[in-house]
Amino acid sequence: MTTATPQPAFVLVRPQMGENIGGAARAMLNFGLDKMRVVDPRDGWPNERAVAMASGAGRVLDGAFLTQTTAEALEDCHYVFATTARARGLTKPVVTPETAMKQAAERIARGEKVAVLFGPERAGLENEDIARANAIINVPVNPEYASLNLAQCVLLTAYEWRRQSADIVHERVDMTKTDWANHAEMEALERHYEERLDAAGFFFPPEKAEGMKINLRNMWSRMPMTRADVQMLHGVLRQMVRWKEKG
Amino acid sequence: MTTATPQPAFVLVRPQMGENIGGAARAMLNFGLDKMRVVDPRDGWPNERAVAMASGAGRVLDGAFLTQTTAEALEDCHYVFATTARARGLTKPVVTPETAMKQAAERIARGEKVAVLFGPERAGLENEDIARANAIINVPVNPEYASLNLAQCVLLTAYEWRRQSADIVHERVDMTKTDWANHAEMEALERHYEERLDAAGFFFPPEKAEGMKINLRNMWSRMPMTRADVQMLHGVLRQMVRWKEKG
Repeated sequence: MTTATPQPAFVLVRPQMGENIGGAARAMLNFGLDKMRVVDPRDGWPNERAVAMASGAGRVLDGAFLTQTTAEALEDCHYVFATTARARGLTKPVVTPETAMKQAAERIARGEKVAVLFGPERAGLENEDIARANAIINVPVNPEYASLNLAQCVLLTAYEWRRQSADIVHERVDMTKTDWANHAEMEALERHYEERLDAAGFFFPPEKAEGMKINLRNMWSRMPMTRADVQMLHGVLRQMVRWKEKG
Repeated sequence: MTTATPQPAFVLVRPQMGENIGGAARAMLNFGLDKMRVVDPRDGWPNERAVAMASGAGRVLDGAFLTQTTAEALEDCHYVFATTARARGLTKPVVTPETAMKQAAERIARGEKVAVLFGPERAGLENEDIARANAIINVPVNPEYASLNLAQCVLLTAYEWRRQSADIVHERVDMTKTDWANHAEMEALERHYEERLDAAGFFFPPEKAEGMKINLRNMWSRMPMTRADVQMLHGVLRQMVRWKEKG
């Protein structure tokens, strides 16, 4: 992952606490983003506290583009999203982070430059900043409790970027070193249990025996077993038999 | 949103810093989750720092279920996910937060109880805890930089829960108080500009005039305009004319 990777720029507008700038840098890099722009940070630039908090993501801060106004930060951009806690009756599309990053990926694939504005910690973006955006990102939080901080808002947006753009494997079973039992081995296990349980009088009364055996086979077949599992289950049964035979 | 809302339980296993427990409570409540379980917290329970950090989400801590072991915390659960930074060659499904919360929503809809385990800050979950889980959640982070903390991991998982379960509107234009211009109003605007610009000699040379007019009409039609926008654009033009006429 290099700075050349096409990606949206994340623009922190008038951020206040250095810790939050550093936290935003980490949140971005977790999801492969490293193009930060910073507009008029309260405590100047570079910011020591941001650097301290960024641990390992310092290069995001080193490469950050500093401007005095939001307009300057957006000069080269074709499409701009603004994040707000509440959509404020503006006549603009209001989208989820998911939809926003889907649209961003499409635009970036067409060669456009896309930016996302994040407001200062307390107040959020001013209307003047929001007026520069083409669309609004609104995180679908609990309407009765919304307390996302700057780094968390950056985190969720960056997460959605990676989700929309990366080839993510949504479900896999880790096959490393896994040696699955084959059908013959499973049948041998079934037979072993059936025989021994039969001898032990488990399938009782006789008229229910066949049904009980089918249930048992169904149970085994539902379980994805490794060779080691099968060996262990053979061992369990052998031990029970040995124990019984000792009297 | 009440405690009766069906939802997964989030289980913090041996959390260390009170701040992170409070941060986790906030992260949960942002996405409508309030069933927390806490296993053997390092600094005892209740935890003052957790309460201080939870600002507004204190009721998640008040309602938290405290146990000494992971096994006790999971007693009533039918299906358990474990979050890990790396999938460790275990023979279990490894899923994204998205897939996990989709599966959780399906299971919960069928009446099952689902839990998600989150490990201690530094070390993460122990193998013994992971062995109790049916599946592993792995956040698809940048393989070259992964530094999610406890509250962030809780945040992303809670976000996915809400994304999978809530009726989220993915894109809307806020129509509150929006009074869109109708076709007749747009045509009147086009005509107004065309006439005045014609008079001003804008459509020049004559052989290009028709193409220029079509371009102008296409531009207007691309813009979603409110009645107020239309009135303002009429005003702009009227003012230019007035200014010109004053000489």
